[in-house]
Amino acid sequence: MTDRQMAQKQQAGEFAATLITDGMIVGLGTGSTVRFFIEALADRINSEGLDITGVTTSNKTSSLAKSWGIKLASVDEVSKIDLTIDGADEVDHQLNGIKGGGAALLFEKIVALNSAKNIWIIDESKYHDVIGQFPLPVEVVPYGSHQLLQRFLAADMQPTFRRTMTGERVTTDAGNYIIDLHLDRIAYPKSLAYFLEQTVGVVEHGLFLDTVDEVIIGGNQPTLISNTKPSC
Amino acid sequence: MTDRQMAQKQQAGEFAATLITDGMIVGLGTGSTVRFFIEALADRINSEGLDITGVTTSNKTSSLAKSWGIKLASVDEVSKIDLTIDGADEVDHQLNGIKGGGAALLFEKIVALNSAKNIWIIDESKYHDVIGQFPLPVEVVPYGSHQLLQRFLAADMQPTFRRTMTGERVTTDAGNYIIDLHLDRIAYPKSLAYFLEQTVGVVEHGLFLDTVDEVIIGGNQPTLISNTKPSC
Repeated sequence: MTDRQMAQKQQAGEFAATLITDGMIVGLGTGSTVRFFIEALADRINSEGLDITGVTTSNKTSSLAKSWGIKLASVDEVSKIDLTIDGADEVDHQLNGIKGGGAALLFEKIVALNSAKNIWIIDESKYHDVIGQFPLPVEVVPYGSHQLLQRFLAADMQPTFRRTMTGERVTTDAGNYIIDLHLDRIAYPKSLAYFLEQTVGVVEHGLFLDTVDEVIIGGNQPTLISNTKPSC
Repeated sequence: MTDRQMAQKQQAGEFAATLITDGMIVGLGTGSTVRFFIEALADRINSEGLDITGVTTSNKTSSLAKSWGIKLASVDEVSKIDLTIDGADEVDHQLNGIKGGGAALLFEKIVALNSAKNIWIIDESKYHDVIGQFPLPVEVVPYGSHQLLQRFLAADMQPTFRRTMTGERVTTDAGNYIIDLHLDRIAYPKSLAYFLEQTVGVVEHGLFLDTVDEVIIGGNQPTLISNTKPSC
């Protein structure tokens, strides 16, 4: 990661923290950009005495938020999340996104779905004409996952199991595996989403379509892009 | 369960065991009818010295098959399953089925998908004009499942969490919950399947459409119904 990307992540995360108001239930995403947001949010909670409840999207974020003293609740304990701030691995000009680089896509999607508003914070290197350059993460049931990999292979989707540094298959917080599809260019994200949702053994995929309301790209003056499509 | 139903389950299970030939890799379903099949199959393996490998669909069936000395493999360790014998909770005249009464629908569907041929064994009480009288099991991710139940409720799908005798939510072999939808009559199973597959938090549903090749209904002369629809 370049210094410029790192600075933009921080700028985006800190700007997002200014959008939180007292009393909000806030969805807390996962990843390096969200980390900056959580730190800045914790600062505001402490210095301004805000009453904020966080709903997290991964065990990792839960640990981080707890270490900053942020009050947490499960998505099932709140009536509605007011605003979720999350990162994204790639976003196109229609604000379709790929998420799951941190293997948290399942809980991220569940939290996003239960949020009145979703904002993604990114650096400019993530914003592309068409998504697909970033490998598409697919969360799969371990039983039968080798057979599923063969199906993706036969469909020329260049699948690989995500592995840890020591070569073990990555296990998600929900106990599943991640298969990354190296597609290079996803021309028809909705068709691909439909295909993956129909595929037995797929728990969830990293295509986030019609999800986000605003994208913040870090900078000295952060850029705000609003989603003008009707949300489903 | 009536004596007649029990007798038909046994007749269907024992008949299915006559269809197994030496060298087959056999998918072993889950449930009370499959239990008769497994016992009859074990008898044949022992008396005829057949070389059979079983691929199971639940921890319960694994334990049962092991107790009968049947050699087992995971779905990921075999190239293809030759024939899977499973039960069903309800089957309509187009051979659409509802499965998951035993909470094993996810692994049952994965095994079915990887089988060259699928046969269901049932008693006549399961064979209906239209499915839906049997509550439709939906396997869901625990995180967010309370919110998901509210969505099903709002859609008038009469959802209930499946619970144990002691009131705990049933946990599947994959660590998920089961929500049963009390729909009474599923007029458009394909549309419902599509809706459920798109729903975030749904891991799999109990609609098995275009899955089965033959259904055996128990009786002194078992009835065989062949699927004449093209399989997907």
